[in-house]
Amino acid sequence: MMFVFERMYLNRCSQQTFRKLRANAKKNYSISRGLELHADRIMSMAQERGHPSLVRTPFFSTDEKEEFMAIFPDIIKDLTKNNQYADISEVNERIGKLLEYNLLKCRKTWGLWATVSYKMFENPETLTAANVKLANILTWCVQMWRGAFTIFDDLMDNSEFRYGHPCWHRMEDVGIAAANDGWLMDSCIYTLLHKHFGDKKCYRHITDVFRDITTKATMGQALDMMCKNRDGTPRLENFNMDRYNTIAKYKTGPAHTYLPVATGMYFANRYDPEERQHVERICIDLGMFYQKQVTVWSYQFIVFLSAIDTPLIQRDSTKWV
Amino acid sequence: MMFVFERMYLNRCSQQTFRKLRANAKKNYSISRGLELHADRIMSMAQERGHPSLVRTPFFSTDEKEEFMAIFPDIIKDLTKNNQYADISEVNERIGKLLEYNLLKCRKTWGLWATVSYKMFENPETLTAANVKLANILTWCVQMWRGAFTIFDDLMDNSEFRYGHPCWHRMEDVGIAAANDGWLMDSCIYTLLHKHFGDKKCYRHITDVFRDITTKATMGQALDMMCKNRDGTPRLENFNMDRYNTIAKYKTGPAHTYLPVATGMYFANRYDPEERQHVERICIDLGMFYQKQVTVWSYQFIVFLSAIDTPLIQRDSTKWV
Repeated sequence: MMFVFERMYLNRCSQQTFRKLRANAKKNYSISRGLELHADRIMSMAQERGHPSLVRTPFFSTDEKEEFMAIFPDIIKDLTKNNQYADISEVNERIGKLLEYNLLKCRKTWGLWATVSYKMFENPETLTAANVKLANILTWCVQMWRGAFTIFDDLMDNSEFRYGHPCWHRMEDVGIAAANDGWLMDSCIYTLLHKHFGDKKCYRHITDVFRDITTKATMGQALDMMCKNRDGTPRLENFNMDRYNTIAKYKTGPAHTYLPVATGMYFANRYDPEERQHVERICIDLGMFYQKQVTVWSYQFIVFLSAIDTPLIQRDSTKWV
Repeated sequence: MMFVFERMYLNRCSQQTFRKLRANAKKNYSISRGLELHADRIMSMAQERGHPSLVRTPFFSTDEKEEFMAIFPDIIKDLTKNNQYADISEVNERIGKLLEYNLLKCRKTWGLWATVSYKMFENPETLTAANVKLANILTWCVQMWRGAFTIFDDLMDNSEFRYGHPCWHRMEDVGIAAANDGWLMDSCIYTLLHKHFGDKKCYRHITDVFRDITTKATMGQALDMMCKNRDGTPRLENFNMDRYNTIAKYKTGPAHTYLPVATGMYFANRYDPEERQHVERICIDLGMFYQKQVTVWSYQFIVFLSAIDTPLIQRDSTKWV
């Protein structure tokens, strides 16, 4: 009965199912504990594969986060004050609103791996302030990719809240136009990359990795969508533990872990195919660990919320993804 | 009162408005004739700018079209039989269905400009059968871009028919998942380009032009969507002739004309910035000509249909775009 952990089912649970879940909380807790142990085993495995620093290093300091946040106005300027598009000021305004709403409220944890990875892979003599600023731009690109994916995901799930605020498609003047906004935000990534990395050797590798991750994530999303009927009701017969693992392998793992690490690695001019494969393998394991951990937390959280009757927060997608 | 030509308004006309349109057919015909004359002037201008062959050459012969269609099974194979994704056979099947449904029914006129342009720009000694096959793959990439854009466009307009068949989002097992399918089809373009052009100098230029066109088209689409309320009803106060021209400049022109010509030009290793700008200017003019011509035809067609009461064909988006 592993599927009870999956958000798409929990998200749509009837009151009756909630009562059942509450009644079985103790039994289910032991299953979730089993999943946690499995996740711990994956974490140990990743450490054994020779990159202990990758999993033990703290993600980033407060200074690093402040430095990263400080360049956000420049990012907005790059994408909304382009003379080439001066005749469509209304669109520029919308892009500004789109980026601010969807990027400032979300978690920065995974995106910042791009900056952290760059610092780990770069030679000390080329680790300049200017290059760290560029690495932070890469991190914003990763955040933008996640923002675009989230816009599509929330639209297709018809979610109500994300990070404690209404989802983008629920905003006035958005609705189904969120589909175009998601694609537009994705294209903003390449505008930034072209402007800041267009003259560098890493440009092609970085753009390729973004595109490769988009292919994998949209394939994973397609698989995820096959577990639902057209009206959004779940197709339980299409869901099992193998399917759960495959969705995580495509939809979550590459984008959450490999994308930021690979972009940082390429910016540090590390192109060795063996090293890249090694990093990818560790990242995929960590992505699986992340997905399982979040699933367990989500499950425990929803059981807790169902006990205290908090319908508003229950519908916040942040808690399930 | 130029806005009466715009499909988004005509598409949602009430029966009363239809009666008015019918009554005013004669008066409105004179306006549409004015637009046609304007389009003719643009065509003459493009010819005067020194590329008469570009606008006079027939698009393609029957043999060329057959040669192009013959490689479609290889395209499907490239995108659905990749060993890397052997564990998600259901997704591969869906991609096959997605491509067949959305690419085989649409017009090939504009996409084939990529092959025609390549042949025009290439040196005779390198114009080999193998290179023409690659140019045809480029043409399929252009078709795929248009397919992805059309999926998004129909979903956001909630259209019913396209090319005489139900729109993709109206198919069973699709619905709102069309948003992911559009993004997935877009990413298929880069998979193909990486496989067939990844080792060539033109690779970076071709991928960049696809990305640049996506930015412009999604900006144009955002502007277009601003002419509607969230429920799909038109916002007439936001629409005038300037807005019509700006939407055409971003949403239609670059994708329909410049994209195929530029990809063919880059594949022929023509990178001169002045030549590129010259080609772009002509293409944008032709794109405007195309948009105005289609708008006039659509208007005349809807007046004709409203007179003979054919509600089914009225809702086919092909006739308005």
